[in-house]
Amino acid sequence: MNSLHSFAFGLATHNSSAELIEAFYPMPCFKPSEALSDLLVTSFELAAMSNNTYTVDPDTAAHLVSELETLGENKLATQLSAMSASEQPVIACLVSVDAPPQSIPEAFLKLHLLSHRHVLPQELNLNGMFGVLKNLAWTNLGPIDLDDLPALQFAARLEGKFINVETVDKFPKMTNYVVPRGIRIADAARVRLGAHLGEGTTIMHEGFVNFNAGTKGAAMIEGRISAGVIVDENSDLGGGCSTMGTLSGGGTEIISVGKNCLIGANAGIGFPLADGCIIEAGLYVTAGTKVQLLDATGNLSKTAKALELASLTDMLFRRNSISGAVECIPLKTSMSLNEELHSNN
Amino acid sequence: MNSLHSFAFGLATHNSSAELIEAFYPMPCFKPSEALSDLLVTSFELAAMSNNTYTVDPDTAAHLVSELETLGENKLATQLSAMSASEQPVIACLVSVDAPPQSIPEAFLKLHLLSHRHVLPQELNLNGMFGVLKNLAWTNLGPIDLDDLPALQFAARLEGKFINVETVDKFPKMTNYVVPRGIRIADAARVRLGAHLGEGTTIMHEGFVNFNAGTKGAAMIEGRISAGVIVDENSDLGGGCSTMGTLSGGGTEIISVGKNCLIGANAGIGFPLADGCIIEAGLYVTAGTKVQLLDATGNLSKTAKALELASLTDMLFRRNSISGAVECIPLKTSMSLNEELHSNN
Amino acid sequence: MNSLHSFAFGLATHNSSAELIEAFYPMPCFKPSEALSDLLVTSFELAAMSNNTYTVDPDTAAHLVSELETLGENKLATQLSAMSASEQPVIACLVSVDAPPQSIPEAFLKLHLLSHRHVLPQELNLNGMFGVLKNLAWTNLGPIDLDDLPALQFAARLEGKFINVETVDKFPKMTNYVVPRGIRIADAARVRLGAHLGEGTTIMHEGFVNFNAGTKGAAMIEGRISAGVIVDENSDLGGGCSTMGTLSGGGTEIISVGKNCLIGANAGIGFPLADGCIIEAGLYVTAGTKVQLLDATGNLSKTAKALELASLTDMLFRRNSISGAVECIPLKTSMSLNEELHSNN
Repeated sequence: MNSLHSFAFGLATHNSSAELIEAFYPMPCFKPSEALSDLLVTSFELAAMSNNTYTVDPDTAAHLVSELETLGENKLATQLSAMSASEQPVIACLVSVDAPPQSIPEAFLKLHLLSHRHVLPQELNLNGMFGVLKNLAWTNLGPIDLDDLPALQFAARLEGKFINVETVDKFPKMTNYVVPRGIRIADAARVRLGAHLGEGTTIMHEGFVNFNAGTKGAAMIEGRISAGVIVDENSDLGGGCSTMGTLSGGGTEIISVGKNCLIGANAGIGFPLADGCIIEAGLYVTAGTKVQLLDATGNLSKTAKALELASLTDMLFRRNSISGAVECIPLKTSMSLNEELHSNN
Repeated sequence: MNSLHSFAFGLATHNSSAELIEAFYPMPCFKPSEALSDLLVTSFELAAMSNNTYTVDPDTAAHLVSELETLGENKLATQLSAMSASEQPVIACLVSVDAPPQSIPEAFLKLHLLSHRHVLPQELNLNGMFGVLKNLAWTNLGPIDLDDLPALQFAARLEGKFINVETVDKFPKMTNYVVPRGIRIADAARVRLGAHLGEGTTIMHEGFVNFNAGTKGAAMIEGRISAGVIVDENSDLGGGCSTMGTLSGGGTEIISVGKNCLIGANAGIGFPLADGCIIEAGLYVTAGTKVQLLDATGNLSKTAKALELASLTDMLFRRNSISGAVECIPLKTSMSLNEELHSNN
Repeated sequence: MNSLHSFAFGLATHNSSAELIEAFYPMPCFKPSEALSDLLVTSFELAAMSNNTYTVDPDTAAHLVSELETLGENKLATQLSAMSASEQPVIACLVSVDAPPQSIPEAFLKLHLLSHRHVLPQELNLNGMFGVLKNLAWTNLGPIDLDDLPALQFAARLEGKFINVETVDKFPKMTNYVVPRGIRIADAARVRLGAHLGEGTTIMHEGFVNFNAGTKGAAMIEGRISAGVIVDENSDLGGGCSTMGTLSGGGTEIISVGKNCLIGANAGIGFPLADGCIIEAGLYVTAGTKVQLLDATGNLSKTAKALELASLTDMLFRRNSISGAVECIPLKTSMSLNEELHSNN
């Protein structure tokens, strides 16, 4: 009846004008039970088919903690109790409908759901999120409103201290919010909150994962996973390789990488890559690249745009280094990840 | 008469040998008024046609604050007053002549002028700056002399603390000094102080901007802007793309990117790109690359070096994926930035 | 008799289960004198032909300090004395045999030996090290066990503080352990502990150096040096260029770069490059790339795989921009580094 799509209790950051600019949810919940949904909807009087965020005052928190314990939601109860006892602003964000996010806490909840692996990329409605999020300085003191920053930087210097501005962006880095199980990220600045990293994923220094993008399972990522792109299990993206996004400069085709693929270093794709395919190092194949399709014996079958070959599995894309032509030829052996490297215990 | 080229009050950092190694200027001034110039030149007795840096003692500061208020320079007065009241070393750097920088505070002033958007790249004399700046460890405790670092690292560990060395370089990152209005920088470690970012510029994780380089206005930068390179309005540098610099490995030709250009992911240029041009993803065109110039119907007009085609606007550079030849062909449609993505409110 | 391969005194970090997860050695020693070896082996009763790590209690430390002073090892004595007086866990790691590392302190000692320039890449036995090292969160509070991280992140937020997780990896960045003499590293997150940077090496923002890899002397590195790869003196790796590693996605051939080489921006190699060679910007040459070998007058000598040409010095590898063929042609002029840029005073 009252089933929520998702919700979370969290701590918020405000700017000097008392506006909420950021939210941290230690335990975002996706599809909570009907009993839990009911408790929350009733407590906060959430209107039907709507989404809202509430500040949780101590009385409400005490009531909820008690009810959560009754429901057996002990971890939530403990966290809410701790938050309520702190001096930080406590919020509850309730989402009934997966509509375009209308507020910062709602947008942050969806980004958390992705990075906590509750949903896969492309499964949430994130339309218009850029317009909702606020561009902030992410620093060693936490997120700071850009209007507040110069005075704080000056004040710090007056005391011989230094504010380290790591990012000026609408998105923070994921690892300051959650590190999902079984991953490595060599340079955490390269993975935004809202990335989905499957268990067994390693992101090397040159790897990058945007929000609403990522891997489904084990993967070695030394290249860039653009917004919206999903990489399936046991694939390897070589150093500096590119997957074309749809946000900027790319086309409208949604890009994905299948299972057991290898995109070579400094290579790139502008079309969805089927299972077991290899793109040779240094070769960029866009959706419109004309490709010579060869049979297993190396004879020309036909010439086609890469996008038209996107359903073919176990193919090697290469540029013939004598003729200069881009070719696509069936693979004889298949790709496997290095077990030792990819264990993330 | 006494007109200064530029000046600033700032806070300095000294190493353990009491040498000045860095300077922070909250409000660098370019072409100050004659009255302001006069006040400063007179107060510090700056010789004609010369540049110098002074430590500002409390008496001088008090005198200047009073005079600045008289001139209506209230923000400068307030800042100087605050600096003088602190325990940090206060300096004034006065530049009459845009000559090669002779000292660290002078070099830092010029880097500040660029990042505060008072001047465009290539407009200041920075000759010999590498020899003037000191290679430092930039840490959570601020800049540290490399000779002082090991003892400080050891001392921190003895207390169970950790000094985070972010950079070992002559240049700090820009955002710890100034974040100009209307920009985003996803990984601030990739933009040096001395970069010039026009309003509406987004630097993504894979973007990079060296000192004395940057953008004039709105731009989406996911590639590398080398020292000396300027990108004009509404252009898009794709992920991992390269602009050849003149400092190292490149030629002597100064590279620029015109308005409304798109350099594809993993592509690169070694010649100045005219307005409205596109370089296909993955294609590197150096100044000497021989290019087949095609007319609008695809017929070969002539073969020329890329540098000889640098004045042509609205052209697409691509490598023919069947013949392997690099081609240049007039574009039919033009490029536009994604509005939602590029708003930096 | 008792000669040690290497040893070090250090400070260790433990997780909440009192397990050692990391070690910092201010002064790792390679091939210590026989007297010093003898003192250590005897004091700790190290079995012959074995490696072991010991916690150093105050009594043992006092004894060792006194004996070290007798041997004239005053710096070691002073450091050990300071460590023993601190509240941090003090360890001694003794290595007799360069066998596969069996413990975290032993693995960290070998990584230190590389970054302190006591040995070159490929000179130590690092077999199985991935399985020995623990995946950790490297933060502003130092290394944190991933099992401990969520509670600590939550606790920090409750106090309005923020733990900055820079890396989730088995390897920390080098600069938090040692900054060897005469180097610059523009983004220190890109160089792992275990990298070997020769004096005069500059690593720009897009540069990267893995453990057990690096440079022998002066070098300008704006590209990626994969695990196991060594770059000889006076070579220049252009922005975003790639050297193929053997750990993941690459072949079995060990890659190296000779003296006075230039790998252009966004280019790459999958074979060992001989002295004085240039790879044109944007060109990826794998071991199996078929290359047209030209003589000095531009006539075709033969067609061969790149690996078969790996012994040829002073060659230019390029892709003919008209025919699309990859060519290899003798160079007329040779490469030199920009002196001003590469001085790292």
